[in-house]
Amino acid sequence: MSGGDRRTLGALLFPGFELLDVFGPLELFGHLSDRVRMVLVGPRAGSVASAQGPAAVAEYGRDDCPPLDLLLVPGGIGTRTGVNDGDLTGWIAARAATAEIVMGVCTGAALLARAGVLDGRRATSNKRSFAWVESQGPNVAWVKRARWVRDGNRVTSSGVSAGMDMALAVIGDLFGAQASEDIAVIAEYEPHRDPDWDPFAARYGLAPPG
Amino acid sequence: MSGGDRRTLGALLFPGFELLDVFGPLELFGHLSDRVRMVLVGPRAGSVASAQGPAAVAEYGRDDCPPLDLLLVPGGIGTRTGVNDGDLTGWIAARAATAEIVMGVCTGAALLARAGVLDGRRATSNKRSFAWVESQGPNVAWVKRARWVRDGNRVTSSGVSAGMDMALAVIGDLFGAQASEDIAVIAEYEPHRDPDWDPFAARYGLAPPG
Repeated sequence: MSGGDRRTLGALLFPGFELLDVFGPLELFGHLSDRVRMVLVGPRAGSVASAQGPAAVAEYGRDDCPPLDLLLVPGGIGTRTGVNDGDLTGWIAARAATAEIVMGVCTGAALLARAGVLDGRRATSNKRSFAWVESQGPNVAWVKRARWVRDGNRVTSSGVSAGMDMALAVIGDLFGAQASEDIAVIAEYEPHRDPDWDPFAARYGLAPPG
Repeated sequence: MSGGDRRTLGALLFPGFELLDVFGPLELFGHLSDRVRMVLVGPRAGSVASAQGPAAVAEYGRDDCPPLDLLLVPGGIGTRTGVNDGDLTGWIAARAATAEIVMGVCTGAALLARAGVLDGRRATSNKRSFAWVESQGPNVAWVKRARWVRDGNRVTSSGVSAGMDMALAVIGDLFGAQASEDIAVIAEYEPHRDPDWDPFAARYGLAPPG
């Protein structure tokens, strides 16, 4: 691992990132502070405004960010310009190549797709914006009905709140089912443990009502 | 309303605030940007570190913060010292006196209790820290088993993720059930709509298994 005893989780920030895509998973990984160090990575160190307005503080810029074991790429309205930002997608491709696990939440999958990180892999994304995300990755095996999809070390979730369920699944894979369950109880969160649970695909006309 | 056409929601930040207590509700209120302006309020303007490490940017300090229609008080480890910070609890009391709705998430209820804002009211809090929170408010009618409790214009939620369900309930009260449902679907979130749903009270020995 890059960070000695602890894995380093880097959450990517860009202007217009979706708040819960970042802070839902970080809330849950945050209960593993002895095993996971979390850093926010922005275009450069400093304040980055979310899609909802409130800003978070990037400890590192993309150029000075430490090695990352776990990479978290959120969605949000900022992905609409982000997909055309070659510096951004190039950074994602380079970091994904050395990461143990690459996670995408919501339309973050569009950034991963444009970075080539999902080529030949199964992946999912936000249901409301699914057609747009799909168009960003013609070589990705998009899965319309899924809470999250794991293909090798790439894990992508459905929209916004689904990132929390994906995070608990990844925590279970890395640290065991008991750790994942304990964290859910501490957060008083009732997770969806079935990756195929997804009533929203039907709500957005992507799948027959199930 | 203080902010012209839009209500102003102020989320209180203090060192050691719990990430999801703030950003879960703000994710959901954030879909009402035409009707709700959201501001982060810290000890002073600038960076405030969460309990989990990552920092958010307070646009305002407590002394220069605009009038607030909606006040959101999060929990987190920082409440342990916060309850003894008279400047903080005094500010909460003053702002609660003029707010349309006062919301507490998780151990944020301890701060509200010490501010006197919950005296004579029914309220709930985080289940793991319930005994400590209870001790901060001897004149509060604490409800052990509840996802959230509304008493007049004071609304308190159970731990961490419960703030999202409380936020959707408040959104329903203010803007209608359809708005609340639409936002939940956009966030691909399946909320608990029953304020009495609370399996965690039993998990922490506060109530018989239900």
